[in-house]
Amino acid sequence: MPSSTQGQTITCKAAIAWKPKEPLVIQEIEVAPPQAEEVRVKVTHTSLCHTDVFFWENEGFFPCIFGHEAAGIVESVGEKVTELEEGDHVVLLFTGECKSCKQCKSDKTNLCANLKVDPMRSTMRSDNKTRFLTKQGDPIYHFLNVSSFSEYTVVEAGCAAKIDLSIPLSRACLFACGIPTGVGAVWNTAKVEKGSTVVIFGLGAVGLAVAEGSKIAGAERIIGVDVNPNKFELGKKFGVTEFLNPKDSNRPIEDVIKGMTDGGADYCFECVGNVDLMLAAFESCHDGWGRTVLIGIEVRPVTLGMHPMKLFHGKEIKGSTFGDFKGKSQIPDLLKMYSENVLKVDEYITHELRFEEINKAFDLLKSGQSLRTVMHL
Amino acid sequence: MPSSTQGQTITCKAAIAWKPKEPLVIQEIEVAPPQAEEVRVKVTHTSLCHTDVFFWENEGFFPCIFGHEAAGIVESVGEKVTELEEGDHVVLLFTGECKSCKQCKSDKTNLCANLKVDPMRSTMRSDNKTRFLTKQGDPIYHFLNVSSFSEYTVVEAGCAAKIDLSIPLSRACLFACGIPTGVGAVWNTAKVEKGSTVVIFGLGAVGLAVAEGSKIAGAERIIGVDVNPNKFELGKKFGVTEFLNPKDSNRPIEDVIKGMTDGGADYCFECVGNVDLMLAAFESCHDGWGRTVLIGIEVRPVTLGMHPMKLFHGKEIKGSTFGDFKGKSQIPDLLKMYSENVLKVDEYITHELRFEEINKAFDLLKSGQSLRTVMHL
Ligand SMILES: NC(=O)c1ccc[n+]([C@@H]2O[C@H](COP(=O)([O-])OP(=O)(O)OC[C@H]3O[C@@H](n4cnc5c(N)ncnc54)[C@H](O)[C@@H]3O)[C@@H](O)[C@H]2O)c1
Ligand SMILES: NC(=O)c1ccc[n+]([C@@H]2O[C@H](COP(=O)([O-])OP(=O)(O)OC[C@H]3O[C@@H](n4cnc5c(N)ncnc54)[C@H](O)[C@@H]3O)[C@@H](O)[C@H]2O)c1
Ligand SMILES: [Zn+2]
Ligand SMILES: [Zn+2]
Repeated sequence: MPSSTQGQTITCKAAIAWKPKEPLVIQEIEVAPPQAEEVRVKVTHTSLCHTDVFFWENEGFFPCIFGHEAAGIVESVGEKVTELEEGDHVVLLFTGECKSCKQCKSDKTNLCANLKVDPMRSTMRSDNKTRFLTKQGDPIYHFLNVSSFSEYTVVEAGCAAKIDLSIPLSRACLFACGIPTGVGAVWNTAKVEKGSTVVIFGLGAVGLAVAEGSKIAGAERIIGVDVNPNKFELGKKFGVTEFLNPKDSNRPIEDVIKGMTDGGADYCFECVGNVDLMLAAFESCHDGWGRTVLIGIEVRPVTLGMHPMKLFHGKEIKGSTFGDFKGKSQIPDLLKMYSENVLKVDEYITHELRFEEINKAFDLLKSGQSLRTVMHL
Repeated sequence: MPSSTQGQTITCKAAIAWKPKEPLVIQEIEVAPPQAEEVRVKVTHTSLCHTDVFFWENEGFFPCIFGHEAAGIVESVGEKVTELEEGDHVVLLFTGECKSCKQCKSDKTNLCANLKVDPMRSTMRSDNKTRFLTKQGDPIYHFLNVSSFSEYTVVEAGCAAKIDLSIPLSRACLFACGIPTGVGAVWNTAKVEKGSTVVIFGLGAVGLAVAEGSKIAGAERIIGVDVNPNKFELGKKFGVTEFLNPKDSNRPIEDVIKGMTDGGADYCFECVGNVDLMLAAFESCHDGWGRTVLIGIEVRPVTLGMHPMKLFHGKEIKGSTFGDFKGKSQIPDLLKMYSENVLKVDEYITHELRFEEINKAFDLLKSGQSLRTVMHL
């Protein structure tokens, strides 16, 4: 039975970023029906990830509807959508899966040629138009394939993973970014082995998911590095075994780490988004096999100030997007690990707010008081 | 029966680099006996690799005895040397194996903590002294653990791989650097798969060994890039299937390559030693799985002018030293591939000269006329 809104424009509330760094404004918008290979989703829960904050702080496409860590219920589907239907529960994906491109067909990557994360894409793929309009008819831009700070959003069908109805959407939303990004960087990108020494730079939700993934992988030492000492107690719950605050020493952090790890860590994860920390992470790895996985997003126009010969010490440095998970295919399995109590979720959720309080969620994350704030729409 | 020179200083001829860029001077020097864990080797054949040329062109440790691609016969051994004895035929190793450090015990790396390549080390490890003296008693520095531009040299026992007596030393010398470096970068570092598309920047002996290794690995397309058009005909012998001269197009080479490879190569190898080519190689790789292996040595004080977010496209960039071979353990096996006619050697040797003509070998390599020149001592 088709929903009464199928094929219709929906008027609903969204939190619009009009300008960089200005508080979002909750107002009514018009959400167009999904076109071919698109679905319209009633967002039930969204959380806030630091990536949203970075892009909101910088010049880009405004006005914009941010938000990419979300779950919801399919309201209607466009033509040619076969794998989803009205009523399906979905986790939204900032890196989707078209399942037909060369990359989707390869088991070496999750970066779909058509639906991979792209902060420069601000419209829908089929017609380069936005599905969001102000009441005045002006376009509002999309963000990272998702735009979940709206009661309804339109996404590519490849950017919605169908999940089991038994999973609470208020928890599933964290599987849209933070948790898979962290655990996947450990399991899929770095392939951390039993007995390893791991160093994590930045103990936000992403860094703590790296800790959790490392613990499950059997890492022996999990060293957390953060400038916020409050993150230390928190880290223990996720498996962090030792803590370092770079502010506590005037020696370079890489020297401290090399000293305490007999020459360097086996694996380092950068979960902040700062080029200097990326280089420090690389330096902190052991010659011969140390692997540095970059997760943090560096939005400033910087370059890797590293001599190329630094790459000749047997160490690797590599970015990881969405934990190298193919979202549509693999997130349902990852959710099983939550259902079976192998993966934590509640522990990442420090705050729950009404959607209207979204600017508070920004304040909490920027000030380091929250890990994840789940907003109920 | 100990050699008559055992324990004695040997007076012999060496080609000394007194100053950067000045022709080497053949003169008599004194070579001290090997100390504990060292061996003295009568160098019978040495070839010239571009790494020697780079370090000879730049400020460093002078006077110096360059040369690291060589083979010879053990003249005498120092105390505690158990695996080698007088008369053994050896390939000298610029990246040795102590067989007792953490790295040697790991199967993830060939970079021995004690004997890995280190252009900054100019003396012997045990006493920080040189074994080479002028007739006036002044020190002459070592280079890359080998210093083969001398009739006799002293090396760490871990830097000499014993080889079968049936292998001609005039051919074995190429297994001290160029050939293993190239084929190993393909087999060990990149792990090129059947059907792959490979791009090689720089078709010197190293780049051509990459081509040979790629062909053996079953690569489907092997695209050679060089500014010297004479290298193109030559490349065919080693498996190169297509040629590109960057000078023939005013489009960036990475755009040309992406255009002809449906989005990029599976594997790129930089075999020149130029940071801009390293970046071009990285850009020429396919999103999602492209792997760039750096082999060329960049001696200038430059940095990788790459935004860190470039590392988030599923591509890897990594240096390879001596083809990731553990020299002492693995070079004898690689030589078997030569004996069994699987690996070429003669094809790399474009010139053979007397040791006295060594400056001519420099001219031939600098001007791109030679691949390898083998000098007979
Ligand atoms: N690659 C991906 O797919 C992906 C996905 C999600 C998030 N991210 C990125 O991951 C990063 C972390 O996201 P989050 O939501 O966990 O952020 P967060 O703000 O919750 O956590 C960041 C942590 O880093 C710490 N920190 C800041 N500066 C530091 C410094 N100089 N040294 C040490 N610690 C420092 C902060 O105190 C905080 O605890 C962000 O850059 C985000 O954009 C990437
Ligand atoms: N990593 C290692 O273990 C290792 C070992 C041996 C050699 N090397 C390095 O490998 C590199 C190659 O050594 P080789 O002995 O084969 O040198 P070579 O001089 O024989 O070959 C270099 C080739 O690069 C070409 N070239 C120069 N500039 C170019 C450009 N801008 N674009 C395209 N081609 C260009 C030249 O024409 C030449 O054919 C050197 O940098 C050397 O130091 C590294
Ligand atoms: Zn795809
Ligand atoms: Zn060793």
